[in-house]
Order: sequence, then structure tokens, then C-alpha cells
Amino acid sequence: MNDAAKQLLDKYVKTVDECLLSFTADKPELQGVVCEAMEYSLMAGGKRLRPVLCLEFYRMCGGKDMDSILDIACSIELIHTFSLIHDDLPCMDNDDYRRGKPSCHKAFPESIALLAGDALNTLAFEVISNAALDGRISADKAVMLISVLSKGVGVNGMIGGQVIDLACEGKDVDIETLNVLQSYKTGALIEAACVMGVILAGKFELIPKAAEYASALGRAFQIVDDLLDVTGTFEELGKPIGSDSEQHKCTYVSVLGENRSRQIASQLTMQALGHLTAFEDNGFLSELTDDLLSRRN
Amino acid sequence: MNDAAKQLLDKYVKTVDECLLSFTADKPELQGVVCEAMEYSLMAGGKRLRPVLCLEFYRMCGGKDMDSILDIACSIELIHTFSLIHDDLPCMDNDDYRRGKPSCHKAFPESIALLAGDALNTLAFEVISNAALDGRISADKAVMLISVLSKGVGVNGMIGGQVIDLACEGKDVDIETLNVLQSYKTGALIEAACVMGVILAGKFELIPKAAEYASALGRAFQIVDDLLDVTGTFEELGKPIGSDSEQHKCTYVSVLGENRSRQIASQLTMQALGHLTAFEDNGFLSELTDDLLSRRN
Repeated sequence: MNDAAKQLLDKYVKTVDECLLSFTADKPELQGVVCEAMEYSLMAGGKRLRPVLCLEFYRMCGGKDMDSILDIACSIELIHTFSLIHDDLPCMDNDDYRRGKPSCHKAFPESIALLAGDALNTLAFEVISNAALDGRISADKAVMLISVLSKGVGVNGMIGGQVIDLACEGKDVDIETLNVLQSYKTGALIEAACVMGVILAGKFELIPKAAEYASALGRAFQIVDDLLDVTGTFEELGKPIGSDSEQHKCTYVSVLGENRSRQIASQLTMQALGHLTAFEDNGFLSELTDDLLSRRN
Repeated sequence: MNDAAKQLLDKYVKTVDECLLSFTADKPELQGVVCEAMEYSLMAGGKRLRPVLCLEFYRMCGGKDMDSILDIACSIELIHTFSLIHDDLPCMDNDDYRRGKPSCHKAFPESIALLAGDALNTLAFEVISNAALDGRISADKAVMLISVLSKGVGVNGMIGGQVIDLACEGKDVDIETLNVLQSYKTGALIEAACVMGVILAGKFELIPKAAEYASALGRAFQIVDDLLDVTGTFEELGKPIGSDSEQHKCTYVSVLGENRSRQIASQLTMQALGHLTAFEDNGFLSELTDDLLSRRN
């Protein structure tokens, strides 16, 4: 990634972090602990890929007032964080670490972690409806955004992917099933992020192109994740390496092997870059897309 | 309750049940089990109080096309059911029974119960946004409804109440704290249901009156719940009696005693009936309100 792109990414991440922090700034006296748990997980770091994608698609599509839609881009990170908290719970993956820190249910009681995830899920929709009530976006756009986001989260989106993931544990699955699993589990929310940026800018005719880009990017991103799980270190990943294979998860590496996985991730990244050509001023996102392939965490 | 009111209530419940069933009619092949778990808990019975309140406020405020807003009224029951599933989980109240049947996490793996709750939470907002995309309600109304519902669910609503409830377990709390706890835990969603009915009918000036009614009803409802936990039978309640006191929950009975609780429930019911006089054609809801005081489950 070139220096200009790095600087822009840093600026995006800083802006997103500040906005995420503002969501839980007000901690009510009696139930403040759930806000602390939400904040703990929101502030545990992370690439902020989904809000950055939303903001960048908004910008590439001619959106001019990023400040006014920042919280909407961040609503997608609320959902992502909710999914990580619930994914780590003992009845799910039972992961003690997330991004080098104790998981939410290790830092807080399990009940509070559960409720923090629930509250983050709901808060995403509150944030979007507030933007319309404030007059920052039209009610029509808010409805489209909520529709796209809720579908991306639900039974035919992220949550559906988690269910398929559980069903596939310890089983031999074919590449088609794995593709469906991952297109739901990771892809749906990444697609929602890109599409929401386009909707916010009002360039509705570009929604299919954004979705195509997101589909290729999402799969490439997941394959790299699976590769890192076998080749990374605890320091890089912030969690024990090989935890996927210990849990008998179906991954691209387990189904295709390391070399073939690497090849396909490269091919998908090229496809994603191709889809980006439909968008003007795509320099930063091209850099970022390329960078995600060679990331170490 | 008189016969006409009984018949209307039966009709409401039947209509609501059918609508709830339709939400999970489509069960995708790979992840259908989560839809089965959602359906299991949605169809476990229950009074359907929240959708009925929403539909009846809509009607009392002049709403004429109940079929077109039925799914929105039912979206509140999706939220209520999500909260029951998560409340029953081992890390929360660890309840094995709900309405006389095994809890969701006893009938399904705990992971699936968790995800079914998550999916129901999100689905509520998808349903409301769909109604606007279909043109059945305006986008402006959808945004108001989503705002009201998400606030009723969140940190200063139902979920906040669950957090306070956990914090108060085993402690001596005063009546003020208990009132706050219950106004969040039970009251917020009941208020959302009533207010959403008023919004759907477009009689915005009546929102405060609906909220006042809901506040009194919600507290009366909770006190009766607490009384039933000590005086009811398994057959009536569908769960072991005395389970609240076994879990050292703070209840109106534990704080105020049985007699005083009964008195206050009566007073609150009278207050609720008083607030209803602001609404025309309030016969059915007056009957229902009165009936909730003397219910056996």
C-alpha cells in the first residue's frame, strides 16, 4: 500500500474508532456494565474493514458529506462486533481470546457478554433510524439501508452462515458448500457494507457492481483468514493459531489445501479489482483490496 | 371478560399466530434448523399481548387496514420471543421450561437457540423495513417505528432491564430500583407496542396517552406475574413455580409482600383504565386490561 493510501486508511480508522466510542459514551448508572462490555469489544481493535468499505463506496459514488453518514457506516461494525462476541461464547466457538485480549465473556460475565451482543445488534438499527429522524438521510434511504443490513445479518446472511458453519464442523464438505457457508457468514455483511455506501450516495444503478466486488473480496478475505489460521502467530492474530482446525472447522485450507487456497485468493482479488473499475477514483480501494491479500492479521 | 371481547381476543390471537408462522415458513436447506428453533419458540404459545396491544391501539386510533400492518404488530412478538430464548439460556436464568415445553436450548442445541434469538431480533427490523419497501406504510412511519422499537429493546429498554435484573439478583433492592428495573425489562416493549399502534394509525398526538397507559399496564402486568410465580401451579404457568425466588430474583412480592403487591396491581389497573378513556371505542381493551389483573398464567 502506498503512503497516501496508508494515511487515508489511518484517518478512516481513527474517525471510525471515535464514532464507535461515542455510541457507548453515555453509561446509565444501573445498567452501565453492558455499555462497558459493548465498548470493550468495540474498542478491541480490528481493521474496521466494513465501515471503511461503506465510507469509500459512498465517496467513490460522489458522496460529499462523510461526517453526516459516519455513524451509519459504523452501524455495520456494531453488527460485526455483536457477531464476534456471540461467536466466542462457550456454546459457540468457546474462544478465550479475540485480538490478543480476553474475549468479552472472559472480561465480563457471560450473561453480560450475551446481552452486549444483543444490544449491539439492535443499536445498529436504532442508529440508522436516528439518522433519518435527524434529517441527515431521507426516510426512503433509511428503509433501504435497514432492509439491506437486516437481510445481511439474518437467516439468509451472517447468522445463516454461522448455522451452516456449526452444521459442517467435523464433516467433509465440498467446495460448493464451503462457498455458500462463507458467502453467508462473511460475505453477506461485507456486501451490505459496500451496497450501503452506494445507497447513501444515491447511485442505485451501481449496487450490482458493488455487490459483485464485495462477493469476490469477501471470499478472498476469508481464504486469507483461513491461511493465517495455519501460518500466522499468536502475536499476529491475537488468538491461538490453528484454533479453526482444533475445532474441526471447515476452511478453505482444509478443503483445498494451502497452495490451491493461495491461488484462488489471488484470482478472486484480481476479480475484485476488475469490478472496481466500474467506480471512479478507485485508487485507494484498489490499494486496500490488494493489501488484504498479503495481510498478516 | 365478556363473550364478545373473548371472541375478538381469540380472533386476534389466531391472526397473530398465523402471521408469526408465516415468518419462518421458508426453511433454507442448509441452515433450516435455526428457522425450526425460531418457529418452535414463536409457536410455544403465549398471550400475544404485545401484538394485540399494537393492533388494538391501531384500531382505536382509526386504523382501517389491519391486514396490511399485521406483520409489523407481530414484529414486536419476534423481539419478545428473542428475549425469552436468551433469558432462558444457561448463562442467564438457566430455565429448562417455558410455557410447559422444554426451553429452546433444551429442544435444540444451545448454539442454535442463541442464533435463533439473534435472528428474531434482526428479523423484527427487516419486517418493518419490508412493509415500507412494499408501500404498505410510508418510509417516514417505518423510521419512527424502528426508532421506537429499537429504543424499547436496547440499553435503555428491555436489554437494560435484563442487565439490572442480573445486578439485583440476591440483593435487597428498594421499590424505586425495582420500578426502574421493571419499567425497562417489561414496560419498555409493552410501551413500544402501544405507541407503534398509534404511529401506524397516524394519530401522533395520542402517543403520550398510549405511553401512560402502557406504563401503568406494564407494571400491573409484572406484579401479577410475580404473584403468579408464588401462587400458581406448573400446569397454569408452564414452568416450575417459585423459580424466581429460587434464583433470588427481585420481585414485587419479595419487596412488597403479597398483599401490598395485590393492592398496587389493582391501583395500577385502575390507572391504566383511566388513561384508556382518551381513546374512542376502548371497550375491548378495557376488558382485556381488567382481565390481565385476574389472569392465572
